[in-house]
Amino acid sequence: MAEAPLYFPAADRQRLEPHLPPPQSSSHRKTTDLSPSSCSALPFVTLTFATSLDSALALGPGIRTALSGPQSKAMTHYLRTRHDAICVGVGTAIADDPGLNSRLDAAVVHISDGSDNDGRDMTGYRKDEGSSRNTITTHQPRPIIIDPRLRWDFTAQSKVMRLAREGKGLAPYIVTLQKEPPIQKREILEDIGGKFVILNAGGDDEGKNGSTRRLNWRAILSAVRQEGLHSIMIEGGAEVINSLLSEEANLVDSVIVTIAPIWLGRGGVTVSPPRTVHVDRPVARLSDTMWMPLGDDVVLCGRIAR
Amino acid sequence: MAEAPLYFPAADRQRLEPHLPPPQSSSHRKTTDLSPSSCSALPFVTLTFATSLDSALALGPGIRTALSGPQSKAMTHYLRTRHDAICVGVGTAIADDPGLNSRLDAAVVHISDGSDNDGRDMTGYRKDEGSSRNTITTHQPRPIIIDPRLRWDFTAQSKVMRLAREGKGLAPYIVTLQKEPPIQKREILEDIGGKFVILNAGGDDEGKNGSTRRLNWRAILSAVRQEGLHSIMIEGGAEVINSLLSEEANLVDSVIVTIAPIWLGRGGVTVSPPRTVHVDRPVARLSDTMWMPLGDDVVLCGRIAR
Repeated sequence: MAEAPLYFPAADRQRLEPHLPPPQSSSHRKTTDLSPSSCSALPFVTLTFATSLDSALALGPGIRTALSGPQSKAMTHYLRTRHDAICVGVGTAIADDPGLNSRLDAAVVHISDGSDNDGRDMTGYRKDEGSSRNTITTHQPRPIIIDPRLRWDFTAQSKVMRLAREGKGLAPYIVTLQKEPPIQKREILEDIGGKFVILNAGGDDEGKNGSTRRLNWRAILSAVRQEGLHSIMIEGGAEVINSLLSEEANLVDSVIVTIAPIWLGRGGVTVSPPRTVHVDRPVARLSDTMWMPLGDDVVLCGRIAR
Repeated sequence: MAEAPLYFPAADRQRLEPHLPPPQSSSHRKTTDLSPSSCSALPFVTLTFATSLDSALALGPGIRTALSGPQSKAMTHYLRTRHDAICVGVGTAIADDPGLNSRLDAAVVHISDGSDNDGRDMTGYRKDEGSSRNTITTHQPRPIIIDPRLRWDFTAQSKVMRLAREGKGLAPYIVTLQKEPPIQKREILEDIGGKFVILNAGGDDEGKNGSTRRLNWRAILSAVRQEGLHSIMIEGGAEVINSLLSEEANLVDSVIVTIAPIWLGRGGVTVSPPRTVHVDRPVARLSDTMWMPLGDDVVLCGRIAR
C-alpha cells in the first residue's frame, strides 16, 4: 500500500489551496527591513512536517520512522510540486539521505488539473520559468539543504544527487556559512546543476562560537529568493522546525502538519519549540485552521497567529 | 464565549456514539483473569484529555492552561454525562481543585435527545439505577480520585465537595492504599455521600518503596466496578495518562483526545508515555479512528490497536 503510485485527489488539492503559495508568488508581499544592499523580497514559506500524537518526528535521532499513511504521503508529494523549493536541515540530510523530490506522477498531475483553464499550472510552477529545470523533470522543487558548517559529507551517490542525474528531481543548493567549500564537493554539485549558496552572515552569527552558530532564517530565505525561488516548503528536521516556530514564526506564511494516531513514546525526536521570548506563554498558535482527515491521519493547515 | 452555556449538538453526539460506553454496560465483556475472590468485571474505560500540538496538557506543573475552545469544552461535559464515573489522579486534584461535574444543561440534554424513543436515556444513565444519585443532580458522573498515599489535603470547601453539597455534582470516591484514612477527612466525604475506597493492593504494589508505589489499574478499575459504576472516563493528569498508555493500554476501551492548534513549548507537562516494553517501538497506536474538527480544535476518537 505504501508503495502504491502516489495520487492526490483534486478535491483534497482544492481544500489545501488557500494554504499554498499564491500563483503570482513573485509579487509576494513580504519585504524585509534590512539595508538596501540585501534583497528585500522573501519567498512564501510553508512549514510542513508529520508528527505522532506525542509530537515526535522519529523514534530517536537518526531513526527514520514511518508515521503517516499513504494518503498523507501523497499529500506531501503534492505539496512538493506546489513549491519552488524544498528545505531540510543538515541533520535530516545526514540521517535520512533524503530524495527531496516529488514522486507524484506527472501525468496524473496534468490529468486531474485539466479543468484549470486560467493559464496557470495548478502545480504552482510557472511554465515560463525554465532554465536548468526544463532540462530535467518539471514540477520538481529545488532541494535546499541548510548546512552552515558543511557537516554533510555527501557523494555523487547520495540519493538527491542520483535522482537529479536520473532526471527525477533537481540538484540541491547547499546553504552554508563556509566561505570556501571543498572543490571536490563543488564539482559533485555543479556537475548536476547544483551549487553552494554562501551566506554573508554578518557579525551576529559568525565566529562567536563555532559550535553553536545559529541559523539566520531571514538571510537564508533572502538568499533563496535571490535564486529566483518564490516559494519554499521547509520539512525539517526538529532543530529547524523548533527554531522557526520559536524565533522566526513571523517568516512562516503557512503551516501544514500531519498528525498520525500513534504515540512514539518518551525519547523521540520531538517538535517542542523552546520558549525563548516568554517562558510563561505558549510559543505559537495557529489561526484560520482547517483540519482535514486523510486516511488514519489528520492534516492541520493554518497560519501563525500574530 | 468560554462562559456561554454548554451545549453539544445532537449530530456531534451521534458521531461520538460508537466510541462511548454501550447502553447495557453492566453486561460489559471485559473480565479479568484474577482469582475468584476479586470481582471479575471491569468498567468500560474511556481515556480522554486535551493537548497542544506538542502534546502538552499544561504550560507547567500546577499551571492550569486553557487549551481547547468552547465546542471541545462542551464535548467534554457531554462525555461526563455519558459515563458513570470520572477519574483523575491526585496530582490533578491538588493542582486544579477540579469540579469534576458536568455543566451541560440538563434541560438541553433532554430536548436534544427527544427523538430517542427506544426507552434508553441517551445520556447513558440508566434511569433505574438510582440510589444516592437520585437525591441530587441526575446525569452527573461519580468523581473518582486516585490518591494511593492520601496526599490530597481536601477540605469541605474544595470545589468538588461544594458542588456536591449544592447538588451540582456527586461526592467523590477517593481510591487509596492507606488502610486508615484520617477520621476528619472521612467525615467530610461521608457528609455529602462520598467515601474512601481502600484498595487491597496485594504484594507487588505495597511497601516496596513508599515513594514510588505504582498504580495497579486493574485493581482500581475492579474496585470502581464493584461500586456499581459501569463506565469511567479517565481525564488525567499526565502521570495517569502516561501510565495507562504505556503499561495498561489493554484496559482502555476508548480514547478521545482533543488537540488544540497551539504549541505550548518546551517545559510543558506532556503526554509522552515511557517505552516500558520495547524501547525501539511505538508505545501505542489507535485504530478505528475518527477525526472530528470542532471549532479550532480536532477531536480524535479511536481504540488502542492490539
